Amino acid sequence: MPNKTVCLLSGGMDSTTLLYHLVNEGDDVLAISFDYGQRHGKELEYAAKTCEKLKVNHRICNIGGVGAFLQGNALTSKDIEVPEGHYEDESMRLTVVPNRNMILMSIAGGYAVSQACNRLAIAVHAGDHAVYPDCRPVFVGYFEKALQVGNYEPISVYTPFLKWRKTKIAKLGQRLGINYEEETWSCYKGGEEPCGKCGTCIERMEALKRIGQK
Amino acid sequence: MPNKTVCLLSGGMDSTTLLYHLVNEGDDVLAISFDYGQRHGKELEYAAKTCEKLKVNHRICNIGGVGAFLQGNALTSKDIEVPEGHYEDESMRLTVVPNRNMILMSIAGGYAVSQACNRLAIAVHAGDHAVYPDCRPVFVGYFEKALQVGNYEPISVYTPFLKWRKTKIAKLGQRLGINYEEETWSCYKGGEEPCGKCGTCIERMEALKRIGQK
Repeated sequence: MPNKTVCLLSGGMDSTTLLYHLVNEGDDVLAISFDYGQRHGKELEYAAKTCEKLKVNHRICNIGGVGAFLQGNALTSKDIEVPEGHYEDESMRLTVVPNRNMILMSIAGGYAVSQACNRLAIAVHAGDHAVYPDCRPVFVGYFEKALQVGNYEPISVYTPFLKWRKTKIAKLGQRLGINYEEETWSCYKGGEEPCGKCGTCIERMEALKRIGQK
Repeated sequence: MPNKTVCLLSGGMDSTTLLYHLVNEGDDVLAISFDYGQRHGKELEYAAKTCEKLKVNHRICNIGGVGAFLQGNALTSKDIEVPEGHYEDESMRLTVVPNRNMILMSIAGGYAVSQACNRLAIAVHAGDHAVYPDCRPVFVGYFEKALQVGNYEPISVYTPFLKWRKTKIAKLGQRLGINYEEETWSCYKGGEEPCGKCGTCIERMEALKRIGQK
């Protein structure tokens, strides 16, 4: 029996690579994306396109009503500018949406239970750990325990990139045939073109340069 | 400094009592209710009325889009009937919404973080443990750990009723001046009047009878 897996898909480099990886492993995959009123809603178009290409079932869950409860950050508050600079910079703290991964993973976890899946996959990785506490191994560990004891059906949380750097993820994606420029979106600013200056643009450019895609 | 607390408020007996209790303890309270497409959306009117009476800030978070991802239960699936009988009955399993508390508590937890609260209160109690795994102490424990390591600001989860039976909750509420018939709603069926036959109606009637309210 193949794994039946719900995959959180933002449309960025990491989760797109995870989706390719799951399909390559032979999983029966259900992809879920979230519209939470993020500035960079454009990423959802990329998510949809990738699922169409890979023939993966894809649903977008609209939780736009939640954004108003999570103010004080640059991703969901219209009056806070997206900071420019590196992921390690203190300013990147402005891009932390309170409890974001727990919210998204909880809904995806409920979806996985109701679809009789045996796992939930998310592309958190080591590059996120400095800024985002809800991407760290200790968080994933407690989340998985809570998910397992909180439901009748045990779902495991699959995070193959948890200790990987972005370049390693990009190398895997390249082997799996991903053209990152065409198939993924990262910029937090939500413009027509990537700004090239926000933390996620810089991180993306560095990784793509290292694997020779640009 | 008083506690600043986000309180999950459904509009039923338990969470209404919790709200009264927090106000009585002098907490600075923000109440949050959820519209998740539940049949018994009527409970939200009761929640709003109570907050008005107690002069508590109240917001309803619409996550109606999530219901479609959590099918297969009587509370959010229109084609599944609400079962009749006692909480201990096997049929009550049909009222389990996959991962419900984790979803609601995650959003409320994010709200608590963004409002600089120091705690999140939820009225889970011992009467729920048999049917609902996401009301059990072991779940609350792991959830709290995940919430704490997943955010920069440590929020504690306050569950004063965790080991109480419903009658004990009702007794506290009575001391605090609650008229349960007028101020709360329990029935899962969503009719104009309580059905008197579903698990939550029966549990409610038993508790109210024991405290002499009816």
